[in-house]
Amino acid sequence: MPAPLKTMADAIRVLSMDAVEQANSGHPGMPMGMADVATVLWTRFMKYDAARPDWADRDRFVLSAGHGSMLLYSLLHLSGGKAVSLDQIRNFRQLGSNTPGHPEWGHTPGVETTTGPLGQGLATAVGMAIAERHLAARFGADLVDHRTWVLAGDGCLMEGVSHEAISLAGRLKLSRLCVLWDDNRITIDGAVGLSDATDQVARFKAAGWAVKAIDGHDVGQIRRAFAWAVRQDKPTLIACRTTIGKGSPNFEGTHDVHGKALGKAEVVATREALGWPHDPFVVPDEVYRPWRAAGRRGRKELKAWEARLAASPQKAEFERAVAGELPKHAFARLDQFIAEAETKAPAAATRQHSGAVLETIFGEIPDLVGGSADLTGSNNTYVKNTPILDAPDYSGRYVNYGVREFGMAAAMNGMALHGGTIPYGGTFLVFTDYSRPAIRLAALMGVRVVHVGTHDSIGLGEDGPTHQPVEHLAALRAMPNLNVFRPADAVEVAECWKLALEAKRTPSVMALSRQKVPAVRTTVAGENLSARGAYQLAAASLPAQVTIFASGSEVSIAMAARALLEADGVGARVVSTPSWELFAAQPEDYRAAVIGETEVRVAVEAGVRMGWDRFIGADGIFVGMESFGASAPAEVLYEHFGITAQAVASAAKLKLD
Amino acid sequence: MPAPLKTMADAIRVLSMDAVEQANSGHPGMPMGMADVATVLWTRFMKYDAARPDWADRDRFVLSAGHGSMLLYSLLHLSGGKAVSLDQIRNFRQLGSNTPGHPEWGHTPGVETTTGPLGQGLATAVGMAIAERHLAARFGADLVDHRTWVLAGDGCLMEGVSHEAISLAGRLKLSRLCVLWDDNRITIDGAVGLSDATDQVARFKAAGWAVKAIDGHDVGQIRRAFAWAVRQDKPTLIACRTTIGKGSPNFEGTHDVHGKALGKAEVVATREALGWPHDPFVVPDEVYRPWRAAGRRGRKELKAWEARLAASPQKAEFERAVAGELPKHAFARLDQFIAEAETKAPAAATRQHSGAVLETIFGEIPDLVGGSADLTGSNNTYVKNTPILDAPDYSGRYVNYGVREFGMAAAMNGMALHGGTIPYGGTFLVFTDYSRPAIRLAALMGVRVVHVGTHDSIGLGEDGPTHQPVEHLAALRAMPNLNVFRPADAVEVAECWKLALEAKRTPSVMALSRQKVPAVRTTVAGENLSARGAYQLAAASLPAQVTIFASGSEVSIAMAARALLEADGVGARVVSTPSWELFAAQPEDYRAAVIGETEVRVAVEAGVRMGWDRFIGADGIFVGMESFGASAPAEVLYEHFGITAQAVASAAKLKLD
Repeated sequence: MPAPLKTMADAIRVLSMDAVEQANSGHPGMPMGMADVATVLWTRFMKYDAARPDWADRDRFVLSAGHGSMLLYSLLHLSGGKAVSLDQIRNFRQLGSNTPGHPEWGHTPGVETTTGPLGQGLATAVGMAIAERHLAARFGADLVDHRTWVLAGDGCLMEGVSHEAISLAGRLKLSRLCVLWDDNRITIDGAVGLSDATDQVARFKAAGWAVKAIDGHDVGQIRRAFAWAVRQDKPTLIACRTTIGKGSPNFEGTHDVHGKALGKAEVVATREALGWPHDPFVVPDEVYRPWRAAGRRGRKELKAWEARLAASPQKAEFERAVAGELPKHAFARLDQFIAEAETKAPAAATRQHSGAVLETIFGEIPDLVGGSADLTGSNNTYVKNTPILDAPDYSGRYVNYGVREFGMAAAMNGMALHGGTIPYGGTFLVFTDYSRPAIRLAALMGVRVVHVGTHDSIGLGEDGPTHQPVEHLAALRAMPNLNVFRPADAVEVAECWKLALEAKRTPSVMALSRQKVPAVRTTVAGENLSARGAYQLAAASLPAQVTIFASGSEVSIAMAARALLEADGVGARVVSTPSWELFAAQPEDYRAAVIGETEVRVAVEAGVRMGWDRFIGADGIFVGMESFGASAPAEVLYEHFGITAQAVASAAKLKLD
Repeated sequence: MPAPLKTMADAIRVLSMDAVEQANSGHPGMPMGMADVATVLWTRFMKYDAARPDWADRDRFVLSAGHGSMLLYSLLHLSGGKAVSLDQIRNFRQLGSNTPGHPEWGHTPGVETTTGPLGQGLATAVGMAIAERHLAARFGADLVDHRTWVLAGDGCLMEGVSHEAISLAGRLKLSRLCVLWDDNRITIDGAVGLSDATDQVARFKAAGWAVKAIDGHDVGQIRRAFAWAVRQDKPTLIACRTTIGKGSPNFEGTHDVHGKALGKAEVVATREALGWPHDPFVVPDEVYRPWRAAGRRGRKELKAWEARLAASPQKAEFERAVAGELPKHAFARLDQFIAEAETKAPAAATRQHSGAVLETIFGEIPDLVGGSADLTGSNNTYVKNTPILDAPDYSGRYVNYGVREFGMAAAMNGMALHGGTIPYGGTFLVFTDYSRPAIRLAALMGVRVVHVGTHDSIGLGEDGPTHQPVEHLAALRAMPNLNVFRPADAVEVAECWKLALEAKRTPSVMALSRQKVPAVRTTVAGENLSARGAYQLAAASLPAQVTIFASGSEVSIAMAARALLEADGVGARVVSTPSWELFAAQPEDYRAAVIGETEVRVAVEAGVRMGWDRFIGADGIFVGMESFGASAPAEVLYEHFGITAQAVASAAKLKLD
């Protein structure tokens, strides 16, 4: 590699090696191996301005092999970003630094997504590339015209989600997406060949990608490959044959250099081998200079873009969308919908109500982009007459994600991170198990995506226990910063959708019934009661002895149990709990009032008890599931598992006696 | 298709169509489309005896596209199995029938694994094929020499886990595995092309498979393909171009026939088109006869096999292994290990204790087959000098699963279902999110697999929040029939491993610390205290005012907090809770005694509170996590998040005051 590129790349190597050494923790191998490829990309091809990581039309760079975080921090630092100072690099992996072990979005400007759980960076990048094409179609190439670059390792490509990601990207012909595969033939356990013999080149071609294999240390080949990639009409894979830990004379090319500090002696030996005479965390001006120049390369383009934006009639709308603000009257029609539902009390499955809500708001919120993992009709996620988002016209607002729950969820994260879109996607609630790793990253990052999980209990019926969520509400509610909504009827569905879309920094899961349920919100409330998380739906008409808590499709069972109890002279109140997370955020006196002090507390939910003790206490009565479900019609199952108004009323009375 | 094969296949079509019609629920399209391929397989190639679904050396047939369950029920019925009578078929998808919506292992003899969640049948079958090769190496081809057949649909092949499965199978050259891909170009949402354009033939070749594409309705091509498949030295894919719903004159080839009843008129029209004059649920003798003959085809081979088994010096050992019984003295050395640990009180990470336990038992339990998803050194799953299970000598007992958590978990299910092996596999606990769908199937089926989940909290340290489980203990504990073990030291680790291996019908997760922890079980107990799930580890030495509950790495924190409290004159007892599930199964008086009646109850666990209220009540004190973690050294994080003995003691005292 000719200087100064060689020296510029060595700066990455040394910073990475030294930071890991200082922390005595981290992964030097990948940054040292991919330093050359990354240097060429960041100095010649990537469109960015290091001083403006917020530029909406910048190229995105996703480090899918997130353990190699020092590569990214080095790039951000060297190119002149403000976020990552030398001090931050010195504090690599320490509390409060901008340089955590894996890159974290929202934590370090310039980091486009949180990575580390392998494969997901790639799958998230697919969503960014979808959003880019969609917004280019919506706002025009004057405002949106950029690329998404992904650095992925062998681990990323072994993960199943990589298959979902690349087949979706191939199908959608996302030509602005380029994956740089760090083909270093090493994993943690040793040679890749120990566990994998996949012909990745053939595999990506089979998925509809254009592929080029190069020597990842040959700057000429690297440049030609990038020049080739930007001309393709398909997504591109550049297979970069590299030496892991390149520069470390004794460890390069071995798995010893993957995930731990090199050690004092090898750090010295590497400095010598690279011809890098400077002390740790010292980068000489002659290296900073070309790097900083590279980091300013995009400034002219940025200025031109800003001028175009300023002159654009779409300026306000573009800025609103990219900022993630909802349109001013986003919910005008939805508020009418709620008012009507409160008086007309429509009985239907809550998934159908959700479909009706989407019909109501889809035209008002042009940022919404829907989809389903091949369960469109069941999830009620499609708004009629919506064009499909697909090549070559990406202006459509519905994605056929295919049978790819995890890939869908990760792509949704990427769309939200990209900005300008608010993605929602449907599958059966039970299959949030498949997408869970991406839901977790959404919660960790704090991005607004809405997961529509229909068929949310044994009410799914005949498909049986493989398709019936039992533990999923508990498992999802256990996750920090995730709003789990389980609305009971049309009004609550509308309220919860509103809350989900207003939660800019929190993803949501909408748990919806397959089966028809009666309306329970049949009087005009004048406020969004679901915003409280839990609220008294019905007071006792006699002195209250029993409180019945329920969510979703079981709220009507609670109401029926209340009627049975009151007919027997036992006063009973009902509390609907559409969102535990929002309830937990209420003032203590409100929570105490809702929970109340009746002698008996019962919860009814067609799921497991876990977590309900916060409402009913450890000695409360729980009517729900203790096992997996079974295959039978829904109403038979509710009887079979004893989740009935009669069971609730009887248990309450037994306890009162 | 020549009669009688055509008629035999039509019997499947009509039974499937009629059963779905009767239930008004189910999926007729796939059974009707794949009837011809399945008929040729079950009448000419598959090794089985319909009367003996327990024959250890039978070929396995896995319906990965589990929604087409009527195909399998039809095959089981027609070939003469006892489990699925015509009455059962009439009760398709009804409570208590043998014919649930999706095939359920343990419910219907002849069903080899529970399927429905797409992709997992295929991934499970890979495990069966691994077990077959391994046992063939262990016991010889005289006793083990069979094939695994998989029927997979487009959905299975779109799921990410299919990538993990086929790349693992390709790498291991599992030539006894044959996948029949129902290439019908239809998914629920419509044409496959709407969401996928993958060249599956090229894709499988890239993964090291041999591939043949055929017309799935041409009996000659089908036969030649099977004859070809059994000669390959790689796993094989037969791409069967079929017409979904074949035989339905108006709906075949459309997505309308995928997942619902055809309707009365179309059922009549289909009968006519097929030339099938018989009433619903009537199969004439001339169709039964060749089917029953086919179902008996393997009997001679079975008898010969039984004779070989009877004569084999390995008879007893083979039967023990296949029955899933542990060797008589499986734990002799482990009991010594426990006794030593009780006196020597070794301090180490619990993952290291787990490694030591494996060293101790691995030689005693030859059925154990370990592995890791590329984190061998971190998971402490490898027992030194163990040969790797790999082609061509499959006798090794350690699988390099690669970066494939989900594929590993599904393969482990397949190995357990196959019989003869007890699989365990490691990854970081946080990545049970990736393998969760397979853990769920293990729990639903009730198979003995052990998931080793190390780095089980913020104690993981610098890798940061993407790698730190916070909600995972709660999410796993929420799942029915899953034992979640979180042992505190060497003694508990050994006890929990013993319990996991003794639980024949329950999978286990072993949550283990990355960081070193002191011993807490330092006196001779004389019994497996972990078997109680929770137990009093330390009584109060003063009148007890406080009870501190903890698990795993926080038990020593609880003990330190107890010391602080007692030094301040406050009597405190400590309860260790290595398994909530086993505790829930204890008699009520035991549970009440363990929970006790002290004025203050505190729980300390480096995870979320969810579920802990059962121990401490809704008003108890919880010291743990309320958010995701952070990147920093472990001890810094414990301080930062306030999970310390001081915090526990202070909170308890504050409440007492």
